[in-house]
Amino acid sequence: MRRNGIIYTMYNMSAPTGHVFIATSLDGFIARRDGDIEWLVSFPGTQGVDHGYDAFIADIDGLITGRGTYEKVLTMEPWYYNRPVVVLSRQLAGTEPPERLRGKVVFRDETPEEAMAHVAAEGWRRVYVDGGQVIQAFLRAGLIEDMVVTQVPILLGDGLPLFGRTDSDIRLTHQETRSFASGLVQSRFTVDR
Amino acid sequence: MRRNGIIYTMYNMSAPTGHVFIATSLDGFIARRDGDIEWLVSFPGTQGVDHGYDAFIADIDGLITGRGTYEKVLTMEPWYYNRPVVVLSRQLAGTEPPERLRGKVVFRDETPEEAMAHVAAEGWRRVYVDGGQVIQAFLRAGLIEDMVVTQVPILLGDGLPLFGRTDSDIRLTHQETRSFASGLVQSRFTVDR
Repeated sequence: MRRNGIIYTMYNMSAPTGHVFIATSLDGFIARRDGDIEWLVSFPGTQGVDHGYDAFIADIDGLITGRGTYEKVLTMEPWYYNRPVVVLSRQLAGTEPPERLRGKVVFRDETPEEAMAHVAAEGWRRVYVDGGQVIQAFLRAGLIEDMVVTQVPILLGDGLPLFGRTDSDIRLTHQETRSFASGLVQSRFTVDR
Repeated sequence: MRRNGIIYTMYNMSAPTGHVFIATSLDGFIARRDGDIEWLVSFPGTQGVDHGYDAFIADIDGLITGRGTYEKVLTMEPWYYNRPVVVLSRQLAGTEPPERLRGKVVFRDETPEEAMAHVAAEGWRRVYVDGGQVIQAFLRAGLIEDMVVTQVPILLGDGLPLFGRTDSDIRLTHQETRSFASGLVQSRFTVDR
């Protein structure tokens, strides 16, 4: 962050902030091993319910996500995001997204710090950080300001975890929790510095 | 459960129910790899706060737990539990607990079904099921009726997980959630049949 800090100061910019908005099973998975999220999207009582996503995204300049999440969203029609999307992927960097996504999606091979400096230069202030591995990397880099985690009352037993290894404990401050008639429990945490 | 069902019917007993009351980090760990729970017991703002344990234990006949949890509790003075404790351990079965715990703790090498039938024969109705691996085995065996899970707003990055592999999805019904000034968030779920 130090180098970025100098860059932000040089160019009279402030560092953008990273924000997470994600659902997990009670045992902490964001998808099954194969990326399947049917258990989530078809969870009884959640359809047509406002879980706060629209209010969250209203204040977001763009997304930084990973290849796995990108490829999952790519299977959905129409294109889900109404904000510019940066996909961090060594594999995809240097290639072009499908025709229908030109101007909406870019592929970059960058570290979390580089990615944040890059979008800051493009004028982004608040960044939606998505995808399990990208979220983990941004948490380790200290680039997440807050997280809205919505827990679904189901145990999958296996899958792609939201959280992973950290270099040390990451302390959070609980801001609020609400539960829905469906059984979903949504909490917002800020990440302590 | 079928065989136990027949036994319970033969002896005119009803099957005891298993209940979980446990705290985890937000990333789902009940302890660090080495069993350390200092991050939990020293969490700011939790000392002297009633998190519902006394009300929970008041309605419990005894505990079934694992060797890891037993050995952790063994390091605390005085002995923590005011209910009889069954420790499921192949290694300890056939040995005697320390002098001070005679009559309070027994070691048995039993499956979850056998353990529940055994304590049922001793008159237990409501069983506190504790310890990560024992809870997981009882969940897989369909022997948990409800779970009170208290999440602590910290990411440990590694440790002993509360949940593990399951043979299939385990669906829960959310009953209630409350949060504490300390930031702990406590939810109660019943396990769907």
